[in-house]
Amino acid sequence: MNTTAIYHRPESEFAYLYEKDKMHIRLRTARQDVRHVQLLCGDPYTLYKEAWYQQRIEMQKILSTDLHDYWQVSVGAEFRRLSYGFSIESYDGLHVFYGDHGVYPFEQQYLEMNNNYFRMPYFQEADRFKIPEWAKETVWYQIFPERFANGDPSNDPEGVLPWGSKNPDRQDFFGGDLQGVIDHLDYLVDLGINGIYFCPIFEAYSNHKYDTIDYLAIDPAFGDNDTFKRLVEECHKRGIKVMLDAVFNHMGDTSHQWLDVIKNGKDSPFADWFHINEFPVNYKEGENFEDAYDITYDVFAFTPHMPKLNTENPDVQDYLLKIARYWIEEFDIDAWRLDVANEVSHFFWKKFRQVCDEAKDDFYILGEIWHSSQRWLQGDEFHAVMNYAFTDAIIEYFVKDEISMTKMVSELNNQLMLYREQTNQVQFNILDSHDTPRLLTLARGDKDLMRQVMAFTYLQQGVPCLYYGDEIGLTGDMDPDCRKCMIWDEEKQDRDLLHFTQSLIKLRKDNQKVLSEGSLSWNWVSEEDGLIIFERELGAQRIIGIFNTGEDQLTLSRPDSILMEQFVQLEDETMIIDNKGFAIVKVNNEESNEA
Amino acid sequence: MNTTAIYHRPESEFAYLYEKDKMHIRLRTARQDVRHVQLLCGDPYTLYKEAWYQQRIEMQKILSTDLHDYWQVSVGAEFRRLSYGFSIESYDGLHVFYGDHGVYPFEQQYLEMNNNYFRMPYFQEADRFKIPEWAKETVWYQIFPERFANGDPSNDPEGVLPWGSKNPDRQDFFGGDLQGVIDHLDYLVDLGINGIYFCPIFEAYSNHKYDTIDYLAIDPAFGDNDTFKRLVEECHKRGIKVMLDAVFNHMGDTSHQWLDVIKNGKDSPFADWFHINEFPVNYKEGENFEDAYDITYDVFAFTPHMPKLNTENPDVQDYLLKIARYWIEEFDIDAWRLDVANEVSHFFWKKFRQVCDEAKDDFYILGEIWHSSQRWLQGDEFHAVMNYAFTDAIIEYFVKDEISMTKMVSELNNQLMLYREQTNQVQFNILDSHDTPRLLTLARGDKDLMRQVMAFTYLQQGVPCLYYGDEIGLTGDMDPDCRKCMIWDEEKQDRDLLHFTQSLIKLRKDNQKVLSEGSLSWNWVSEEDGLIIFERELGAQRIIGIFNTGEDQLTLSRPDSILMEQFVQLEDETMIIDNKGFAIVKVNNEESNEA
Repeated sequence: MNTTAIYHRPESEFAYLYEKDKMHIRLRTARQDVRHVQLLCGDPYTLYKEAWYQQRIEMQKILSTDLHDYWQVSVGAEFRRLSYGFSIESYDGLHVFYGDHGVYPFEQQYLEMNNNYFRMPYFQEADRFKIPEWAKETVWYQIFPERFANGDPSNDPEGVLPWGSKNPDRQDFFGGDLQGVIDHLDYLVDLGINGIYFCPIFEAYSNHKYDTIDYLAIDPAFGDNDTFKRLVEECHKRGIKVMLDAVFNHMGDTSHQWLDVIKNGKDSPFADWFHINEFPVNYKEGENFEDAYDITYDVFAFTPHMPKLNTENPDVQDYLLKIARYWIEEFDIDAWRLDVANEVSHFFWKKFRQVCDEAKDDFYILGEIWHSSQRWLQGDEFHAVMNYAFTDAIIEYFVKDEISMTKMVSELNNQLMLYREQTNQVQFNILDSHDTPRLLTLARGDKDLMRQVMAFTYLQQGVPCLYYGDEIGLTGDMDPDCRKCMIWDEEKQDRDLLHFTQSLIKLRKDNQKVLSEGSLSWNWVSEEDGLIIFERELGAQRIIGIFNTGEDQLTLSRPDSILMEQFVQLEDETMIIDNKGFAIVKVNNEESNEA
Repeated sequence: MNTTAIYHRPESEFAYLYEKDKMHIRLRTARQDVRHVQLLCGDPYTLYKEAWYQQRIEMQKILSTDLHDYWQVSVGAEFRRLSYGFSIESYDGLHVFYGDHGVYPFEQQYLEMNNNYFRMPYFQEADRFKIPEWAKETVWYQIFPERFANGDPSNDPEGVLPWGSKNPDRQDFFGGDLQGVIDHLDYLVDLGINGIYFCPIFEAYSNHKYDTIDYLAIDPAFGDNDTFKRLVEECHKRGIKVMLDAVFNHMGDTSHQWLDVIKNGKDSPFADWFHINEFPVNYKEGENFEDAYDITYDVFAFTPHMPKLNTENPDVQDYLLKIARYWIEEFDIDAWRLDVANEVSHFFWKKFRQVCDEAKDDFYILGEIWHSSQRWLQGDEFHAVMNYAFTDAIIEYFVKDEISMTKMVSELNNQLMLYREQTNQVQFNILDSHDTPRLLTLARGDKDLMRQVMAFTYLQQGVPCLYYGDEIGLTGDMDPDCRKCMIWDEEKQDRDLLHFTQSLIKLRKDNQKVLSEGSLSWNWVSEEDGLIIFERELGAQRIIGIFNTGEDQLTLSRPDSILMEQFVQLEDETMIIDNKGFAIVKVNNEESNEA
């Protein structure tokens, strides 16, 4: 047995309350090393009196990475408190007890050792990671407002360019606004999405609006606060949730606070609102627009136009928390997406979470974090993060051919094992965004591949997010190119792709419960012929994804019920899947039993 | 290389701010598997532009357990943000890169992989784990007030027994009080301690006072609030810090709140102050005094006299937080020790921490937790826990002979690697308490062994706590036996043991900095002859502990300067240490260079 690989961490993603009276316990062991794991558990206060454990429960191997197997069990406790350890048996015949003080031979003396059990001291509902039910049921649509639709030419900014007249440069304006979104809400309803994630809409200097001037006002080129109120109402009428982008890491350098600092230096009442290393504030222009050096204050990246806010300052905290509350209470938004969330303190986000929870039930908080994010996902900060780490693995395998199929599967599983089950159900699975090249461009225009990747992603745990225009074939490289104007001329839209996306969204929503909560098993992962078969299962429901990522046609036995497919030919007994083909199969055990 | 053993966790005890501008990064590998580890790091926003890392820094192997080696490095960052990964080379010649997406061959393509670096997104001072400087400098003395000294017979409870007239039973009262403590403060000053940890002193029914009736009043048998105010003042005059015991998990069943619940059932205004599963509240007596069954409400352990408080109820939160603040603001206490801290929610403790931080600078919070405690020690709940897990390993080896010397060393190192360096400096190292048999009794009256164990413990990281009376040879088995009356008759005190303890405390305080902050290395761990040599080092200061735990005399070369010893004979060139002997040696490199 490779005992060095064994890992468990109490009160973390390895041991957490899933429901009020039920916790999940996980264990990591070396891959294909261990054949049998049991949880030994009991009440901490009888453990020492009656027996050294009261229950022995089988653990299931649920997922594996290239290096590790993960075991899980769901367990309750009569008195809402649990002591537990692990009985681990390896293929090579070793049997050990793993407890709070390490790995020991499976012998009575170690089972009886003082305090050698892990603990879930009490099932605290207050500490449980809770998610809004609706967040599991949502398919998001991301809108970059300056480029989605121009519904009100009267508010166009100076120097506005004709809609779609060119590929966007960094400083271009095309006149997109909130009225444009309202005008196309029925398009979005037809598409099937039920959540809109808006890039920033508050008053700012740039077209992307990440350099906020006034957090309490809609940018005049987008409309006004009334327009936004109307937009939210129209969305809610249609069952669409609204998420706004909170840029709280930094402000714009044309905000009145920063202008005051420029003017009054350390005598400015806002001098302590930022991280200023030297007065007067200054910088030297770099080669690129947004880059500079010798900046005398902390900024986002190296962008002197985005001075970093000092969220340790109670005044700044009050200011930002008031903003957080204002848009919830006055406009009834349903979620905040937090820009550069990782560079703001946990201390602040915990307060932010409390404010949001107080302001509205079932509010959803999404952090922009590109790396592993356990610390933010403990139940008292965010509900989810933008799951680039997860979708990266899909793109690296399917599109970029940078990693092997087994590595992709390993990495998807690895990401799932970083978080609690309930987190995984609401992770924000985004294949592209305003910050990345578009999927279709990454796929070098190959729409067959794009559809395959989308289908694969929509079958995974976590909620999908569609970047505006992907559904009609919009292309675009790294920003600003990925921020092109939406195409509204149906002649120029790829209507097939649109219908495919509609169907896929419908499939996702029709099978939401099994796709959100169902277990995942990888039934077939064949590097050789490129075939991947996986299954999502919840109770009697099973959704099976079959993907041909290889060069050759593959022949499989014909399934009963195909929900959706691409490049599939059905024969009497068999199903032939071409290169880039896939089939999504549904099996309902109860029904088949009845039949 | 055993790649399965590799572990790192961003923003945890594996990656944390130690000082404002300096973070510690740790890595775990399989024991004696890896020969060389380097940290590859740089600014996240230039990583992708200039090079894939800007710095390559050597990591040191700092401690090992039976299964793992731990590597550590201290690192800063120009812009207060860091991306990092690990270059790992094994004895068998493999070289890998370990980053946020796992273990890869050390090749350029993996170093350049998207988001494959761990992140410390920003050095957040607000999130840094901070400790009060005084907490590192303290040697604590634990007082069980009913048994320390009777300074005021006028407040003796009914049926009080003559002081020390018998070994205590569960329900006995002997009349100890706060005036008794005041009367003996100079004894404590002579002893050298500079912090007192009081078991509960608030009004309660039992002698141990863990069944609180009124959290805002001193128990009448102990004095009144004025007595306590005087006690704190007298302590502070003498440089002694005061820590009170907060029993917030449960209340006593004679509190007015619980009596109201008994009387009014679910109509009681306090019905939601507790976790009541069925009205009317009820239980059936068990065999033991404090045990019962069929209890219709949640309690501490199975003790119907201690109904568990519902700390999710905002009224209960307000009530308890007001208490927390009251004793700090009105009486100037320096620390709270939190009883059964693990069974109260993190949600509550985070609020508690904020209240204490607001009420007094440099306040210290100690949780009673017997198992591994990472979740409570992230910087926003406790500063330390009662370190039974650490001292258990010492007792199991030295006293109980239950584990091997190497296992003890492994477990001590394991515990140190569960927490941040600054946590380890203030962990509460307690060899016995009101909840355990006394050390001398565990050692079957062997004072030589007791002294050896104490010396060994006082040289470790973390602050020692002496249980009242240990210093004069008080004995006692599991409670209530460990709660005997203090012996004040000098004839009956073991004065030698007292002087030894004084010397040891003085040694600890004289060398506090190196013993708090110094690194630890195990120079010699010999199962065969029982010799342990370890070293604490900080700058030019070194303290070396040499312990003979074997049967035979051991001969070593004679050190220059012995600070303290037991059973040591010095010859011209050699030092002979008998069974149960030890020598504490000090080396000051600067001085020796000068000499």
